[in-house]
Amino acid sequence: MAEFKRIGVLTGGGDCPGLNAVIRAVVKTAAGNGIEVWGMRNGFGGLVENQLEALAVSSVSGILPRGGTILGTTNRDNPFNYRLHKEDEVVYADLSGQALANLAAKGIEALVVIGGDGTLRIGAEFGQLGLPVIGVPKTIDNDIPGTERTFGFDTAVSVATDALDRLHTTAESHHRVMVLEVMGRYAGWIALHSGLAGGADCILIPEIPYNLAAVNAKITERRANGKLFSIIVVAEGARPLQGKMVGVKAAEGSSESIRLGGIGEKLARDIERLTGVESRCTVLGHLQRGGSPTPFDRVLATRYGVAAVECLLTGQTGCMVALQANRIVTLALADIAGKPGNVPVEGDLVADARAINICFGD
Amino acid sequence: MAEFKRIGVLTGGGDCPGLNAVIRAVVKTAAGNGIEVWGMRNGFGGLVENQLEALAVSSVSGILPRGGTILGTTNRDNPFNYRLHKEDEVVYADLSGQALANLAAKGIEALVVIGGDGTLRIGAEFGQLGLPVIGVPKTIDNDIPGTERTFGFDTAVSVATDALDRLHTTAESHHRVMVLEVMGRYAGWIALHSGLAGGADCILIPEIPYNLAAVNAKITERRANGKLFSIIVVAEGARPLQGKMVGVKAAEGSSESIRLGGIGEKLARDIERLTGVESRCTVLGHLQRGGSPTPFDRVLATRYGVAAVECLLTGQTGCMVALQANRIVTLALADIAGKPGNVPVEGDLVADARAINICFGD
Amino acid sequence: MAEFKRIGVLTGGGDCPGLNAVIRAVVKTAAGNGIEVWGMRNGFGGLVENQLEALAVSSVSGILPRGGTILGTTNRDNPFNYRLHKEDEVVYADLSGQALANLAAKGIEALVVIGGDGTLRIGAEFGQLGLPVIGVPKTIDNDIPGTERTFGFDTAVSVATDALDRLHTTAESHHRVMVLEVMGRYAGWIALHSGLAGGADCILIPEIPYNLAAVNAKITERRANGKLFSIIVVAEGARPLQGKMVGVKAAEGSSESIRLGGIGEKLARDIERLTGVESRCTVLGHLQRGGSPTPFDRVLATRYGVAAVECLLTGQTGCMVALQANRIVTLALADIAGKPGNVPVEGDLVADARAINICFGD
Amino acid sequence: MAEFKRIGVLTGGGDCPGLNAVIRAVVKTAAGNGIEVWGMRNGFGGLVENQLEALAVSSVSGILPRGGTILGTTNRDNPFNYRLHKEDEVVYADLSGQALANLAAKGIEALVVIGGDGTLRIGAEFGQLGLPVIGVPKTIDNDIPGTERTFGFDTAVSVATDALDRLHTTAESHHRVMVLEVMGRYAGWIALHSGLAGGADCILIPEIPYNLAAVNAKITERRANGKLFSIIVVAEGARPLQGKMVGVKAAEGSSESIRLGGIGEKLARDIERLTGVESRCTVLGHLQRGGSPTPFDRVLATRYGVAAVECLLTGQTGCMVALQANRIVTLALADIAGKPGNVPVEGDLVADARAINICFGD
Repeated sequence: MAEFKRIGVLTGGGDCPGLNAVIRAVVKTAAGNGIEVWGMRNGFGGLVENQLEALAVSSVSGILPRGGTILGTTNRDNPFNYRLHKEDEVVYADLSGQALANLAAKGIEALVVIGGDGTLRIGAEFGQLGLPVIGVPKTIDNDIPGTERTFGFDTAVSVATDALDRLHTTAESHHRVMVLEVMGRYAGWIALHSGLAGGADCILIPEIPYNLAAVNAKITERRANGKLFSIIVVAEGARPLQGKMVGVKAAEGSSESIRLGGIGEKLARDIERLTGVESRCTVLGHLQRGGSPTPFDRVLATRYGVAAVECLLTGQTGCMVALQANRIVTLALADIAGKPGNVPVEGDLVADARAINICFGD
Repeated sequence: MAEFKRIGVLTGGGDCPGLNAVIRAVVKTAAGNGIEVWGMRNGFGGLVENQLEALAVSSVSGILPRGGTILGTTNRDNPFNYRLHKEDEVVYADLSGQALANLAAKGIEALVVIGGDGTLRIGAEFGQLGLPVIGVPKTIDNDIPGTERTFGFDTAVSVATDALDRLHTTAESHHRVMVLEVMGRYAGWIALHSGLAGGADCILIPEIPYNLAAVNAKITERRANGKLFSIIVVAEGARPLQGKMVGVKAAEGSSESIRLGGIGEKLARDIERLTGVESRCTVLGHLQRGGSPTPFDRVLATRYGVAAVECLLTGQTGCMVALQANRIVTLALADIAGKPGNVPVEGDLVADARAINICFGD
Repeated sequence: MAEFKRIGVLTGGGDCPGLNAVIRAVVKTAAGNGIEVWGMRNGFGGLVENQLEALAVSSVSGILPRGGTILGTTNRDNPFNYRLHKEDEVVYADLSGQALANLAAKGIEALVVIGGDGTLRIGAEFGQLGLPVIGVPKTIDNDIPGTERTFGFDTAVSVATDALDRLHTTAESHHRVMVLEVMGRYAGWIALHSGLAGGADCILIPEIPYNLAAVNAKITERRANGKLFSIIVVAEGARPLQGKMVGVKAAEGSSESIRLGGIGEKLARDIERLTGVESRCTVLGHLQRGGSPTPFDRVLATRYGVAAVECLLTGQTGCMVALQANRIVTLALADIAGKPGNVPVEGDLVADARAINICFGD
Repeated sequence: MAEFKRIGVLTGGGDCPGLNAVIRAVVKTAAGNGIEVWGMRNGFGGLVENQLEALAVSSVSGILPRGGTILGTTNRDNPFNYRLHKEDEVVYADLSGQALANLAAKGIEALVVIGGDGTLRIGAEFGQLGLPVIGVPKTIDNDIPGTERTFGFDTAVSVATDALDRLHTTAESHHRVMVLEVMGRYAGWIALHSGLAGGADCILIPEIPYNLAAVNAKITERRANGKLFSIIVVAEGARPLQGKMVGVKAAEGSSESIRLGGIGEKLARDIERLTGVESRCTVLGHLQRGGSPTPFDRVLATRYGVAAVECLLTGQTGCMVALQANRIVTLALADIAGKPGNVPVEGDLVADARAINICFGD
């Protein structure tokens, strides 16, 4: 049994429903074991800048149903390569020593790091410097290998499914094709789950490059069968079989330009042009990241928070908590970092979708 | 007491939550008075094309909570100037006589027309040809004069407010400016109500041209007071004080290009450029039009449907039903058509918003 | 223009969605006019016990979407007849002087009182002692005369309608009668609105004593028409035409016993016994009072809060703010107190419900 | 590869969100394999009474998001012991032969049975008579062994968690104890999950008999720490350590009497009496069973429906589909029937709840 008197917690990367539930569970579980918890403001940046604050049990009262993170977050700062502004110039420096010194000054002996791939990797680096670190995987995209679910994903799927339910009525009333663009730059989990739940006719994901002709054939076949409308869910990172990624500002080549509603709008325009069926696109964007987490995500996030502290108590470090077959397990952080967590193209879920005649554009 | 044996009903214009509730109330009220109801498919187009179907009470069972319209709708067809395809050419013809003949052939003696400005105007024209017509105002934009509320508006405001609640958590967690673009090409009602309900810091509406410097000053002032995030609601038709309307594809000059997320995206980019604060935009789009109506809209739509039939029973025609001080009243269709129903710039609601320090960018 | 430096605000009576929105608007509007706001804890009790706290604009940040009241509330304490515990005995004393002294000691010159009939009446009494008092009507029951809507009502109707939507699927699948008991001890507004919005077949309200035989006839008639299920909404205060009020513990004669699911359960049992159709009851209870207010209620509550402060600024006192034809108006508190705000039995809304064949059991 | 031309499907037992999603997936998957599907009305009763209807793909269009079952259901009829009314008498007879004859007459060669423990057991009996049968487990209680989740459960937990969120604001505003009684006659899964998700202070489940003194001590301890309110979730089947089960009508001894809000009301009364803290109870009842399924349940139900047909295609029969580690697997029906699927008292989830200081009353 390891003994800690004081541990730290931080949230990094994009906003995600359930972050507060993890923080709350960390603080409550620690308190039950006589451990104090300190929070860092705004991810690793706050650790470098020494923005630390004690988190009492009363600090986390009432935050379970709230979206966002009471600690603030950012997806920018890396202490090992820290951006500094020096006389009109941006320079980068390794300030990991500063970060460790800030922890030591407060007597903080271990760190719970809640974040996505980038944040967990930084956590792993601190682990290699001797700091006991536990990772809690966070991504609404569900694309972290080794865990069946990341928290926030169920909420994102709920928002997307609610949107599909709404678009259905308009599609039916107007005999239109309605395209919904959802998150998923590299992995199509949100598109796949919400497409199944929302009764989509086509689901286009990064893992399965699509053929526009196949999509149009699906729409035309439905109309031939008296179904005058169609619903398409497309992950922001989906791409056509031929040619390259498209986006409103694709010329600039930045991934950001694609985030801004590129693929869905293009798809709707192309479908309308080629099939003659009125087509419209909606880009869900940030709505998928915010707001109160679903009960599923609240429970999962709470279990992760409890498990993270229990890892420290049992002397495990350098690991990430994960969900497997309804149980919380631990995986070595080093084994995870940088590996993709894509939708298996030959997997059950894709096969199930095909069985009920959903088209993947291939 | 006028006597009708058979009346017709149609829905025209864009999808709007509550259309089915009106249809249901029309059918049920008519049935209670021994009147048969026939529906036209897809608005006035179906009337010209003779796509009529009898609507029994059983036909409307279960449709109250459903979005969309079981009759289908379109915002294109005008019998007085009907688009026809003749040998590769599009020609326009007055087919209002055909429409009246179709009604006469089925013994349909009067028409309940559910739609927006354009649809109601066509209804009024048929009224001038002697057909008893009752209009039911439909627009999620709430911009029909003479009625305190149009059905569908409350649902649209709910969707927009829910989006603002979600964006709040991301804005707070990331210290960002979040811009939400909502519907309202000419009237800012959705932006104003959802902005008040969702705790927006700035509300930009078509009726009050905005000064970008005033918006930025608001954001900067909030940051000076420790509020690192700001929430902005912008109606799609809002425009800056100087210069003309902007949009991603403004060069094309079509109003459609602006509908596609123009103003919100531009605003977010400009704010980020000028204030240095990370800014993001979400365009709600069609999500505002679809899905199950709120209870408020279901009740209002039901009352409109009842009142429409009762107008016919009491011999009123050429009128529109409207809500005033919790009562359903009637207004002459001719008095309404073409008049704007804008947000009064000096009105109570804008003043109330200003009283709690909401910025309109002026 | 009256000049105040410091005003107080309190919430009294039962929990109601929108209370926080009023408090927020009072504080923000006051701040904009250079006025400080102090809150009393737990209604008039906190005023007597001198539990006052300053409310800065930052104190009300983020509370707009939250249910409940940050000030706490109670429906017990009346300073003019204050319950005291003296040596195992409960005695009552007039401590209104103490209350006024507490205000004076803090320099609080006027009071915004948010509450129902009882709370507003106490406010009026303080007004007669010379304290400038503005009332903000609060009751989810919507039964305050002179205002078209009280805030919280729309939220309660939403919760009840959502429940009816859910019960519909079970009723249909099981061919059952489902009874939903909603709030409304004296007024049937919630039952009437949610019944209209939720597609109820019978609506039973206190204003229209019901005949069980008429209810059963409706159910039987529906089954004869192939509708094997029926939905009934009953206000907790509805009562049969013959005989007296019934409840599980009616023998005790307390109104409380009726609150505890009396009428709905009895109705379900009686219907099943007399018609042979399986019948079930659900009592919504406190779910109607809690949780995030709907956008409608947030806007209305905000407008009330703004108006209350503006009344003080313009020298009006002893009045209540109210909604009439979309505008906020003021009414003399003295004119309101004790008057009922019942559903007009011959009014439009009941007539509309009858027009679509809803049965009131009469 | 087994070859079927025509299969049947039925739903038995209580209403459950997701039933329609299973039916839809069965029909769509079958259609994709050239198999016709016939539905039986109202469970096994319809099979005996020969109420069969063909289900085309168009029959299941639009039912994915709808609660209930388009086939109707009942929790009464058992063909092996069928209730008959003979001259004022109720007699029971084995009509399983009649049921098989009805299937044979229509050429229906196999059966997908969607239901709970009782329904699956009847399915297994038909399997022993040679009929190929696949079971799809259905219970909102999640208490079927061998599967990590039953569909409908996630929806029930969502409804219960939403209720807890609402009760929280009232509890806080009024400094009350709020008790929520949820479903779970034998298993406490709904109480446990919703209690974790809704921030309950005490969770009382059938698997852990509770000591009222421990519950009261928790409430008192919270008040000593300045938390004047408490939230308790109690499963309808929870029972005190000492004494027997209690209910409003416990004297009658029927399990039904307990379902009707017994334990929660009693608990609230006892807590108020013993601690002096105002306490209120809400019984969720049927609201947990109805309404649109969550996306999680829609996906799970769809996968079950697909898997059921695929089992038949691959020649598996006499089995039940189940979820294990994100995959759909099959289990022998005979192994499942009659076994309990209780919350493991020493399991992870209970331990996690204890870690964040939730009290189980033991």
